[in-house]
Amino acid sequence: MTDVVHNTYGASAGFVTTQRVELFDAMRPLVLDSGVELAPIEVAYETYGELNADRSNAIVICHALTGDAHAAGHHGDPTRPGWWDNFIGPRKPVDTDRFFVICANLLGGCMGTTGPSSVNPATEQPYGLRFPLFTVGDMVSVHRALITHLGIDRLHAAIGGSLGGMQVLHWAMEHPDEIGAAVMVCATSRLTAQNIAFSAVAREAIMRDPNFHGGDYQRIGARPDAGLAVARMMAHITYLSEEGMREKFGRRLQNGTTPRFGFDVDFQVESYLHHQGEVFLRRFDANSYLYLTRAMDYFDPFDDMLQAAPKLERLHAPFLVVSFDSDWRFDTAHSRDVVRVLAAHRVPVTFREIASPHGHDSFLLVLPEYHRTVADFLGRPTAAGSTRSARAA
Amino acid sequence: MTDVVHNTYGASAGFVTTQRVELFDAMRPLVLDSGVELAPIEVAYETYGELNADRSNAIVICHALTGDAHAAGHHGDPTRPGWWDNFIGPRKPVDTDRFFVICANLLGGCMGTTGPSSVNPATEQPYGLRFPLFTVGDMVSVHRALITHLGIDRLHAAIGGSLGGMQVLHWAMEHPDEIGAAVMVCATSRLTAQNIAFSAVAREAIMRDPNFHGGDYQRIGARPDAGLAVARMMAHITYLSEEGMREKFGRRLQNGTTPRFGFDVDFQVESYLHHQGEVFLRRFDANSYLYLTRAMDYFDPFDDMLQAAPKLERLHAPFLVVSFDSDWRFDTAHSRDVVRVLAAHRVPVTFREIASPHGHDSFLLVLPEYHRTVADFLGRPTAAGSTRSARAA
Repeated sequence: MTDVVHNTYGASAGFVTTQRVELFDAMRPLVLDSGVELAPIEVAYETYGELNADRSNAIVICHALTGDAHAAGHHGDPTRPGWWDNFIGPRKPVDTDRFFVICANLLGGCMGTTGPSSVNPATEQPYGLRFPLFTVGDMVSVHRALITHLGIDRLHAAIGGSLGGMQVLHWAMEHPDEIGAAVMVCATSRLTAQNIAFSAVAREAIMRDPNFHGGDYQRIGARPDAGLAVARMMAHITYLSEEGMREKFGRRLQNGTTPRFGFDVDFQVESYLHHQGEVFLRRFDANSYLYLTRAMDYFDPFDDMLQAAPKLERLHAPFLVVSFDSDWRFDTAHSRDVVRVLAAHRVPVTFREIASPHGHDSFLLVLPEYHRTVADFLGRPTAAGSTRSARAA
Repeated sequence: MTDVVHNTYGASAGFVTTQRVELFDAMRPLVLDSGVELAPIEVAYETYGELNADRSNAIVICHALTGDAHAAGHHGDPTRPGWWDNFIGPRKPVDTDRFFVICANLLGGCMGTTGPSSVNPATEQPYGLRFPLFTVGDMVSVHRALITHLGIDRLHAAIGGSLGGMQVLHWAMEHPDEIGAAVMVCATSRLTAQNIAFSAVAREAIMRDPNFHGGDYQRIGARPDAGLAVARMMAHITYLSEEGMREKFGRRLQNGTTPRFGFDVDFQVESYLHHQGEVFLRRFDANSYLYLTRAMDYFDPFDDMLQAAPKLERLHAPFLVVSFDSDWRFDTAHSRDVVRVLAAHRVPVTFREIASPHGHDSFLLVLPEYHRTVADFLGRPTAAGSTRSARAA
C-alpha cells in the first residue's frame, strides 16, 4: 500500500525548452477524419536524449487529457519538473541514455499546439467552437507529421497513459510499420456509458456556464471558470480511488476537529478538490476540454471488427498493457478487453495489473513494479529491424 | 438480472391529498442542534391507511435527498403515483390494510415543508442562505413533532432509504422508546471522502453559478439552473451502477448509428442525464440541495463511541438493514458497518444484501427479494407493546 514514491528519483532529463514547429500549410493541409482541412498547425514539443545515427531509438510519449509537451526535465527550476519526470530520464523506465524521447502537445490542446483557443488565420479571431471536430486519429496524424519533420520514420516505441494509450493503440493499428513497440497504461479501446456520462456532465458544466458564450468567451473577454472548475473537480474524483481518498482525506476536517457547519470548504477532501479546480483554471482552456473529451467518447477502433481484424493481423509490434487495480476511471476490464482482442489476432501482448491504491492517477506515480515492468519491456528486442535479425540469429 | 418490475403492482393507496400543518411557534420554537431557534415550521405530509384504536400501527417513511411527502397513492391521476407507490399500499410490503403510514417532506425541503425557499416571517423575504444550518437530528425533531400532533407517541416502525435511513438510525438511537422497528435501506452511518466529494462538487456547481447570487436568487428573480442541473446529472451517475448503465445505454446513439460528431446530445446516456437535469429544475430548489447534502456530510452518530454506546445499549428495536450489491453511492460496506456496530451492542439486526444491477436506485424498484424481505420483517413482532406480550406468552 505504501509501495509508492511521490518524488522523482535519479537524474532528471535536465534543462529543456519547449520547441515549436509549424506543420502543414494551405497547399498540403491536414485532412481531418471529418474531411475538413486544417492548416497551419503549430505543434509544441520537447525532446530528451539523443537521436542515434540510424534514427532507430525514438520513443513518442502521448499525453493524457490535460497533459502537455513538458513531460520531463525542467524549464529552469529543477523543483518543478515535467509531468512524467519520474518516468523519463537517465536510467529511468524510459531511459534517455538510450532513447530519444519526444512529447508533443496534442492537436486541439491549449499548451502550444493549435486548438480551439488558437487564432484562426483566416479570421484573425480565436477559433472557439468553429475549430473543426477531430478524432484520436487526427491527433496521431499530427504526431506523425512531427516525427517526419524530425527525420524519423519508425519509432522504437510509442507510450501513453489514458487518452495517451488510446493514441498509441490507434497509431499501431493504422500504421503498424511505424511502431516498434506499444505501451498502453490505464487506457481503453472505448469508453463505457459511465465514462461518457462523466464526460458529458463535465461538458454540460462548461457549456451551461453563462460566461461560455457559445464558446466565444475569449473574444468577449470572459471565461467559463465556474463550469471548467466544476468539470475538473468532478474528473478528479474519478482519478482517485475510493480507498485512496479514504486514506488521504477520510472525514478529516480542514481546521482541527470542530466542524464549521457551513457551506465553505470544511472537510479536507473539499479543500483538495477546490484547489484542483482553481489550479486548473490557470492552465487549461474550456473549449479544449470539450474537444478532447468528445474525441475520447467517439474512439472505438474495435467497434467494427470486419474493418479492425485485417489491421490487427498486420500488427506485429509487441504490446505492453498495464492497468491498476484501484483505477475506476478506466478499470482493469478496459485493459483486459484490449488484451483479449489483441491476443485473438496474435498480436504479442504482455498484460500487467499493478496493485496500487491510487486509482487512475497511479500512472503518474513511482510504483516500483510498474516502472520495472515498463523498463523491462522497453529493454526487450522489438518486432522489427535489429530485433528481427537478433531473432533470426 | 431481470428480476425487477418497474411498474407498480396490486392496489394503490388510492386518491390522497397532501396535508399541511404548522408546528412550533414563537413561544415554543424548535431549538436546532446549532442552538438557533426556528418557528413556525410548516410541514407537508400524507397518510395512507387507518390509525388503529390504540394508535400502535403507525409507520413513518423518511424520504431521501430529493423525495417529498407524496410517497404513495395519487393526486387524481392514477398513472402518476407517489414515489414509493410500489412499496406502500394494500398488500404491499408496507401494507396499508394493516398500517397507518405517514410520510412528511423533510425540514429544509422545498415540497411544502419549511426550508430555505420559504418566506421568513420576520423579514417577509425568502430565507435563502439565512435559513439556519440544520442536522439530520433536526429533521427527526420535526417528524417527531408531527407524530405528536397526530396523537401518536410510538411507531410500529420507521423506514427510510438513503438519507431516509440515516434519519431512521438517528431516531432509533436518540429516542429508542418511540421506534418499534427500524428499516434502513441503502443507507449509511457516515459518508466517505468520496461521498462527500461528490456532494461538494454538486454544491460548487450551484454556488458558482452566476445566477446563484449568494443564495438570494429568488429575491432577484433568477435561478441557478445551470448549476442545479449539473449537480443533478452528476448525482444521477452515482445512483445507477456501471453495469446498469452499460445494459441500459451502452454506447448506443440517440438517433440511429451515425455519430453526429458535435457537442449536442448524441449518446443515449447523455440524453438520459440531460432529461434528468431538466426535470429536476422544475421541482427542486437549489438552496435545499445545499442544506440537505450538507446535513448528510456531517452525520456521523458512531463517530464518538463513548457517546454512542450507552444509546445503542438502550436500543432494543429490531433493525432490518438492506443493501444492493451494485450500489456504489452507499455500497454494502456502509450497511455492514452499521450492522457491525449495532450487533456489537446487541441490537437485534437482520442484514440482507440484495442482488440487483440497478445501483442505488434499486431501493425505488420492485425487486421481489427486497420487497419480500421488508414485508416479512414488518410482519414480525416488534420489540415492545403487543409484541412483548406475544413473546411473553
